[in-house]
Amino acid sequence: VAAAKECLGIVGVGLIGGSIGLAARRTGRYGPILGVDRDPATLERAKSRGCIDEAETIPGVAKRADIIVFCTPVHQIAHQVLLAAEHCRAKTLLTDTGSTKAEIVEAVESKLTKKRNYVGAHPLAGSEKNGPDNARANLFDGRTTIVAPTPRTPPAAATRATAFWEALGARVATMTPEQHDKTVAVTSHLPHLTAAVLAGLLRAEERAFAGNGFRDTTRLAAGDPDLWTAIFMQNAAHVGHAVAALQEKLDEFRQALHSGGAPTIRRLLTEAKGVRDDLGS
Amino acid sequence: VAAAKECLGIVGVGLIGGSIGLAARRTGRYGPILGVDRDPATLERAKSRGCIDEAETIPGVAKRADIIVFCTPVHQIAHQVLLAAEHCRAKTLLTDTGSTKAEIVEAVESKLTKKRNYVGAHPLAGSEKNGPDNARANLFDGRTTIVAPTPRTPPAAATRATAFWEALGARVATMTPEQHDKTVAVTSHLPHLTAAVLAGLLRAEERAFAGNGFRDTTRLAAGDPDLWTAIFMQNAAHVGHAVAALQEKLDEFRQALHSGGAPTIRRLLTEAKGVRDDLGS
Repeated sequence: VAAAKECLGIVGVGLIGGSIGLAARRTGRYGPILGVDRDPATLERAKSRGCIDEAETIPGVAKRADIIVFCTPVHQIAHQVLLAAEHCRAKTLLTDTGSTKAEIVEAVESKLTKKRNYVGAHPLAGSEKNGPDNARANLFDGRTTIVAPTPRTPPAAATRATAFWEALGARVATMTPEQHDKTVAVTSHLPHLTAAVLAGLLRAEERAFAGNGFRDTTRLAAGDPDLWTAIFMQNAAHVGHAVAALQEKLDEFRQALHSGGAPTIRRLLTEAKGVRDDLGS
Repeated sequence: VAAAKECLGIVGVGLIGGSIGLAARRTGRYGPILGVDRDPATLERAKSRGCIDEAETIPGVAKRADIIVFCTPVHQIAHQVLLAAEHCRAKTLLTDTGSTKAEIVEAVESKLTKKRNYVGAHPLAGSEKNGPDNARANLFDGRTTIVAPTPRTPPAAATRATAFWEALGARVATMTPEQHDKTVAVTSHLPHLTAAVLAGLLRAEERAFAGNGFRDTTRLAAGDPDLWTAIFMQNAAHVGHAVAALQEKLDEFRQALHSGGAPTIRRLLTEAKGVRDDLGS
């Protein structure tokens, strides 16, 4: 006998939310899949692409879903989780996909008035592309999703969130919200910032001479400025430290350029190549 | 009646030299195609992939070729051009593909003892990949090649080099060696340096959390450290200025992070997105 399907709610049906819908559908374990989005056109596209079965509201999803995933901009997530928490059953799993964790998780946990199964999460997927048109069922396959419980997280929430992400194809790593934010400051937020700063330096008359290398290095700069402003503000301290470390390395490089320090430059490039080769393409 | 083919010599038959051979063969206008490389295995691979017809030495190529292109590391080019200049005919076109121009062109022009058709060039193609195995006939199609004449360049050299690169599929832009070096400091050398510095910051325990964004932003860091050390040293002043400009922008960003300056961050990200969107994928 097949297990009963779990009703899945997705709040924010863009690239990530839409891909969650497609990946969840692929498993055959979830249905119906309910979607919430403030933009009716996005909801319609998500539905026509098969990311969701029905459009709903947050209270409506809260009443029906067994699992609700919040895939909205980081500054909206905590508020929406708390709204859903008012209306959902005690057993409902509440989780999110925000690119920051400490501020969101603290905002939710400090304001929950009922016992609820909330745990923060963050799939390390996505790109500079947006919207359900770019969603795909395999977006999370083999990619890491961080699940970020705290001492206040009900153990069942972390267990169920882990199983959910694994069902979607992801590998799950568990760490605290603070560890998460410190890690992604270097692996995700600093590259985004670097890409933006580099793109911002290119003058109009130089654009014709920007090749594939410049395009690769600045690709992230095409991301949504509002989404990323919110991410940077929520992770300001860790990103600030990462920028400071970057600037120290740049100083070292610049000093070597200035003083003819070819051995220093060769060493920096060799170390970097070792790291990059290990990452693979 | 078809025009007689021109004999083409390629010194350094890696990614760029090998691709020149394939692109030249595609035109049907060049032959035989002679290759020089210090590595016998590279020469053999270039021959078996059809990049070149025969292996030669620099003096041998100089005696036979109508056009010789030097595609070796930037610190070897001037010496090799001068060696070929001793042995070639007055009419032979000598050009190169070095990522820097001012130092190479000055070294050649100041030491030429005979009237020779030399002009520096730089195809804005290539990648972190190396070797004739990655060579392809369409590498230059629609891409820009900079031809960098000086007041001492024979006009025929610039004209013929331009026609050569256009025959290979490239669009040609003409500028002085100094303008070239200043431009590519921003469009090519700074992205490489940034990619390397960023890759160098990633700690071993963070590698599992580096996603596609980190990979894109640091892809250039896989480039050859020796080749790039020579490039950076030859363009140290311009790259140094570009790094300083990058650090100023990073300071602005860091200050905004520190002081809750969301509007500043949004403005920097919005400007960067405008530039990046204009570049296309």
